[in-house]
Amino acid sequence: MYEPRRIQHCRVCGSRVEYRTPEDDNRDRAVCTVCGEIHYENPINVVGTVPFWEDQVLLCRRNIEPRRGFWTLPAGFLELGETTADGARRETDEEAGAHIELQSLFTVLNVVRAGQLHLYYLAKLQNTRFAPGPETIEARLFTEAQIPWDEIAFRTVRDTLRHYFDDRRQGAFGIHVGDVH
Amino acid sequence: MYEPRRIQHCRVCGSRVEYRTPEDDNRDRAVCTVCGEIHYENPINVVGTVPFWEDQVLLCRRNIEPRRGFWTLPAGFLELGETTADGARRETDEEAGAHIELQSLFTVLNVVRAGQLHLYYLAKLQNTRFAPGPETIEARLFTEAQIPWDEIAFRTVRDTLRHYFDDRRQGAFGIHVGDVH
Repeated sequence: MYEPRRIQHCRVCGSRVEYRTPEDDNRDRAVCTVCGEIHYENPINVVGTVPFWEDQVLLCRRNIEPRRGFWTLPAGFLELGETTADGARRETDEEAGAHIELQSLFTVLNVVRAGQLHLYYLAKLQNTRFAPGPETIEARLFTEAQIPWDEIAFRTVRDTLRHYFDDRRQGAFGIHVGDVH
Repeated sequence: MYEPRRIQHCRVCGSRVEYRTPEDDNRDRAVCTVCGEIHYENPINVVGTVPFWEDQVLLCRRNIEPRRGFWTLPAGFLELGETTADGARRETDEEAGAHIELQSLFTVLNVVRAGQLHLYYLAKLQNTRFAPGPETIEARLFTEAQIPWDEIAFRTVRDTLRHYFDDRRQGAFGIHVGDVH
């Protein structure tokens, strides 16, 4: 099970917190020993795209840890002030500099051990000119046969790519909801 | 746009934070003035169900703020250590004491101004005995004609109910992705 982020001090007053179950609650939270502020810790969202061009998909080779040097779909943490679609578009721009037309939500994958929910959208590439940002070593198109399956950075990326090529072969794209263990 | 949660002190060392854009980042974060810890703030997830029985849907009358006295579908914040499906089941148990068989993911709705993503699953009721918890005044079944549309607690609940009855009339349930403004 996911280990909470181990808060030690209160965000409001800076005093020590202790982990205990507040009244009217049923699980331990970081509660300030001085002002009583309760600090909730919840899963966060990773949003990204499957940018496709004819029979190929765009992957980015990571220039940052974790999994530096491995290949990923463009994705990153959803930020306050944006929708999941906005975030997926922004990450595709930041990591690949790719021009896309965002299409439907494609995978919704829980990664409980990381405290994350991953959401990938289909994205039709408008051209094949990419301008990867500093987080990416290289952005490149791959057919299914060319995908470096042993060098894929994350399990949700592998699952999303598998669903993409399966659906493409069957001629119909659904939405895939699942969990990664 | 959503106002971040206004962190004032560092969770690691308790010192003052300042909001500034860290190196290699492109937006303001709460950064500790002493130890340098960066505190990210991200949208969180609300998970719930549409519990149905023949031509009726189960609603709960809220016993807590916000929107005390208004009707809602069973839903609440996704917790660390659980999948979105686990969370939806737990909230249905806690708020309605209803026995359900969880079915497919039904709505995925961004609420940007609240910094939230809401996910509702379809849930087939196993019987009509409910045991609402302390957060609920009353749990009751409603046909479409009986839904108290003017007393629904949240916009995502209204949208989810509308999609449910529309899809039911058409004889096929899809998945609905959208934004609430």
